[in-house]
Amino acid sequence: MPPSTFTRLSQRCARAVRSRPFEIAIIVLIVANGVVLGIETFSHLGAAGPVLRWLELAFRAAFVTEIVIRVLAYGRRPQDFFRHGWNIFDFLVTLAIFVPGLQGESPLLRVLRVARVLRLVRFSPGLRTILAALLRSLPGVAGFLALAMVTLYVYGMAGWLIFGDTYPEQYGDIGRSLLTLFVLLSLETLPDLMEQGMAVSPWTLLYYVSYVIITVNLLLNILIAVIVNSMEEARRLEMTERLAPGYDEDGDGVPDEVDRIALTQRLDDLRAVITELERELRIDREDAHVRYGAAGRRSDG
Amino acid sequence: MPPSTFTRLSQRCARAVRSRPFEIAIIVLIVANGVVLGIETFSHLGAAGPVLRWLELAFRAAFVTEIVIRVLAYGRRPQDFFRHGWNIFDFLVTLAIFVPGLQGESPLLRVLRVARVLRLVRFSPGLRTILAALLRSLPGVAGFLALAMVTLYVYGMAGWLIFGDTYPEQYGDIGRSLLTLFVLLSLETLPDLMEQGMAVSPWTLLYYVSYVIITVNLLLNILIAVIVNSMEEARRLEMTERLAPGYDEDGDGVPDEVDRIALTQRLDDLRAVITELERELRIDREDAHVRYGAAGRRSDG
Amino acid sequence: MPPSTFTRLSQRCARAVRSRPFEIAIIVLIVANGVVLGIETFSHLGAAGPVLRWLELAFRAAFVTEIVIRVLAYGRRPQDFFRHGWNIFDFLVTLAIFVPGLQGESPLLRVLRVARVLRLVRFSPGLRTILAALLRSLPGVAGFLALAMVTLYVYGMAGWLIFGDTYPEQYGDIGRSLLTLFVLLSLETLPDLMEQGMAVSPWTLLYYVSYVIITVNLLLNILIAVIVNSMEEARRLEMTERLAPGYDEDGDGVPDEVDRIALTQRLDDLRAVITELERELRIDREDAHVRYGAAGRRSDG
Amino acid sequence: MPPSTFTRLSQRCARAVRSRPFEIAIIVLIVANGVVLGIETFSHLGAAGPVLRWLELAFRAAFVTEIVIRVLAYGRRPQDFFRHGWNIFDFLVTLAIFVPGLQGESPLLRVLRVARVLRLVRFSPGLRTILAALLRSLPGVAGFLALAMVTLYVYGMAGWLIFGDTYPEQYGDIGRSLLTLFVLLSLETLPDLMEQGMAVSPWTLLYYVSYVIITVNLLLNILIAVIVNSMEEARRLEMTERLAPGYDEDGDGVPDEVDRIALTQRLDDLRAVITELERELRIDREDAHVRYGAAGRRSDG
Repeated sequence: MPPSTFTRLSQRCARAVRSRPFEIAIIVLIVANGVVLGIETFSHLGAAGPVLRWLELAFRAAFVTEIVIRVLAYGRRPQDFFRHGWNIFDFLVTLAIFVPGLQGESPLLRVLRVARVLRLVRFSPGLRTILAALLRSLPGVAGFLALAMVTLYVYGMAGWLIFGDTYPEQYGDIGRSLLTLFVLLSLETLPDLMEQGMAVSPWTLLYYVSYVIITVNLLLNILIAVIVNSMEEARRLEMTERLAPGYDEDGDGVPDEVDRIALTQRLDDLRAVITELERELRIDREDAHVRYGAAGRRSDG
Repeated sequence: MPPSTFTRLSQRCARAVRSRPFEIAIIVLIVANGVVLGIETFSHLGAAGPVLRWLELAFRAAFVTEIVIRVLAYGRRPQDFFRHGWNIFDFLVTLAIFVPGLQGESPLLRVLRVARVLRLVRFSPGLRTILAALLRSLPGVAGFLALAMVTLYVYGMAGWLIFGDTYPEQYGDIGRSLLTLFVLLSLETLPDLMEQGMAVSPWTLLYYVSYVIITVNLLLNILIAVIVNSMEEARRLEMTERLAPGYDEDGDGVPDEVDRIALTQRLDDLRAVITELERELRIDREDAHVRYGAAGRRSDG
Repeated sequence: MPPSTFTRLSQRCARAVRSRPFEIAIIVLIVANGVVLGIETFSHLGAAGPVLRWLELAFRAAFVTEIVIRVLAYGRRPQDFFRHGWNIFDFLVTLAIFVPGLQGESPLLRVLRVARVLRLVRFSPGLRTILAALLRSLPGVAGFLALAMVTLYVYGMAGWLIFGDTYPEQYGDIGRSLLTLFVLLSLETLPDLMEQGMAVSPWTLLYYVSYVIITVNLLLNILIAVIVNSMEEARRLEMTERLAPGYDEDGDGVPDEVDRIALTQRLDDLRAVITELERELRIDREDAHVRYGAAGRRSDG
Repeated sequence: MPPSTFTRLSQRCARAVRSRPFEIAIIVLIVANGVVLGIETFSHLGAAGPVLRWLELAFRAAFVTEIVIRVLAYGRRPQDFFRHGWNIFDFLVTLAIFVPGLQGESPLLRVLRVARVLRLVRFSPGLRTILAALLRSLPGVAGFLALAMVTLYVYGMAGWLIFGDTYPEQYGDIGRSLLTLFVLLSLETLPDLMEQGMAVSPWTLLYYVSYVIITVNLLLNILIAVIVNSMEEARRLEMTERLAPGYDEDGDGVPDEVDRIALTQRLDDLRAVITELERELRIDREDAHVRYGAAGRRSDG
């Protein structure tokens, strides 16, 4: 194949990959694939069985074609394709069918076929933004999570010390203790466990009551912190996306390093300024009240 | 009937429909109708039975009269009545009693009679605003919902792969899997399912623990996003309603297209008024700064 | 008693009522009374029985003395004492013991004695503020509550239509339906009810799934609206309390009418101005980005 | 030991205590100690048993060495070591092993060994900040908590009056009443208790329904207030920590008195910097207004 032909093919692929119809076609294929996987779970398929098997083969062909087009779009540097996490995920999930032994009804193949549904997240910019925001909000709550884990561990050890001999089923070792306390977080087993504890000693109520109050408090802190952080992150991502349309060329939902620091800096400056403005306005308000009080006295006199 | 008489009748109807007493009378009728429907559910009614039947006939007559008045209010263009969703709903629910076969104890008639209670939402501007706000906040959380559905589906498929053979009752096909996982969202069945999973393998704990953590997190994100969005929408709707009192003549909670420009104009006016206020306050603030700075310099000198 | 003596006594009472030690003494008495009431619930009191009876008589004497002092503080206009709701509550709860027949172990007397504990709220300014804020946040959520009640009623009727004949225990009449659906709000009975519904028809899942999603959504809306409103109210009350120390002379937690409108007006103006400032800053930011882009291009050239 | 040698040793210890590797080593030791404690809970340890016993002895030696180094760091004033709460906690937990009788399998020794895991909070600045913030947010919700406790107590007394004779197991005295109502907060026992109440009288529904609505509302208020307060506190603590890196030498999470003035100074500096920024932005904004106004006028002319 002469180089010019290959270059032209590569450019056509690159254009196709960026086009809207290509993206929509892939999303439709992934959803259809998910539906077919769902239908396959029903046991009495009858005549539909062979149709589903043919559909599965068609999906495989389509997804392999997709990967080939996307690798070709990188032209003479196909190794660049593997620079992004989602591309590697796509490659593994799609081409695993060529691994010998992954045929028929092997469980790993089934898992890989289900994993294909997750590619939906990769193709929807909205989902990618939300997922990135959720993941990036985690460091902000790492402290709460660590505190929750220390709390859980200490209560787990204490539970083993208190109930280890009496209720080995629930508190026989640290693993069972932690499991019991994790399920207790749903509050489902609270009445039973408290009754069980009462049989040992009324003082065990302190153990359960303090555990419930502390962990519910901590968990709500974590959840609300995650939510607040992720919403803020999503808004920031959306904002930067709108401000700098071509800032994210690899399409992984993370802005390229170049513009990030400048943008973030500016946004943070502005946020601080707004806070300060509000604070100063509050001072003015108190001034105003002082003046208001003076006026009031004047109107009295 | 000579045209002038009809025109006069139509105008009188139009005035009646817009009047406050008419609205209140209809709301009272709907609530009374709801109460009667509730009383009818008790089986040993005795002497009250015929009274309730007479009341039902009276309600039917009243609601038919209401529809006739409201259609007459449209004058020579009764077809305009059917332009708005709520009007069609009213018409179907009220006039269905004239369909032959929908008499006596037919279940569809009962459903239609219960559906009449929903007309309360249509007549209360507050409820209509809240409902419109709740519905309009949905697009804002579409991303979260989609992510939740992908998560639920992937966990459903995984549940079928893991437990499909062992617990066909809960995970026999994708439908049962999804149902089991939906009920698990209430955390009620968590202890039982985890115990069941432990019998298969301790590794299934990973499945349940990750599912609970991820979905609780996502669901709280969705709920809080819905709440924040709907509150913002409700406030906005209320504000525009106050600004342009006659902007929504069809009463469907959505502002008519015609007034959009006027609304924007009014909002700009409001903005100008606030800017004036702001400028005044800024002078105060700068005064404060001058005073503060001067004091600072004095204390230095 | 000569008038001057009475006036002097009345003034001394008025001073006592406003003094900090008087307030603290009453709070201590109420808490002690509550503790004694709690101890009395244990059946085998033995020697402590007569002591508790004597304590109860002492509390009665103390509370009657308190009321007498507070009425005397009003001087020649004792009828003014009954102008405030909490005063009437105090009077009824305290003096009910003089009603003949309310002696010994009558249930009404017991209720009245428990009601005395509620007077704690009346004496703690913090609790009074929170209670007032919670109550005043209710109108703000009246719309959500009405929508929730219409939803509950319509689902109650629908539940009676669907399950009335099959499960009369749960859905036999509108009262049982509403009770079943209220308890379902805690999600405790969801797995059982869904299984029960599946036995009738798989379509009943739609009924339960939609009910759970809609009501959980609505209830969270209501709860969060109550919380947001009550916090705002509490902050406003606290702020106005700090600004105008003598504004609430009757001590009912509600500022006197005179200064309220002016204060609220000013606070609302300021809030609007702050929002506007933020909005304008956002416009500036977009301007800044345009300029930033231009600068970027310049630095390229 | 000559004074100069002691002084040099003390200085070396002080330097070590403040060094990053020392801190990391202690954290690693505490985590490893926690893991070993967890492994010990499994009953069939076999050959690992003696290893764990040796490890425990090694941990003891390490922690005693740590305390000795930290006391030595105080030089000639070792009593200053005991000025801070966390130091006393470390001392007690670590040196308790030298108390005669606290050997072998005594329960108190086990508790002390578990308590060592809590020292993780003391060594992680992040955890210390969060814990301090959580604790300091409590006064802000004291009012809500007091109201919740009064509500719980009054409902407890009412429950004893209503159900005391019929269900002594649940409501036999105020202690059982409060326990029943505390567990009811998890809504787990709601269906059973309501059914039980229905057997006494349908009016008892009022008791349970009002209890659930009021307490759920109050608890959510408390939790959200705790969260909002603690987040604000954590942010404030973090900010001051960043401004004055060495402000908290004792490591108790509370800034030392000495640096208060410096901190205020720094905050004022920051405020000045932000004011500068703000002035710059205000010029932009006014530019924007001029331009906007001019454009408006031009389009009019």
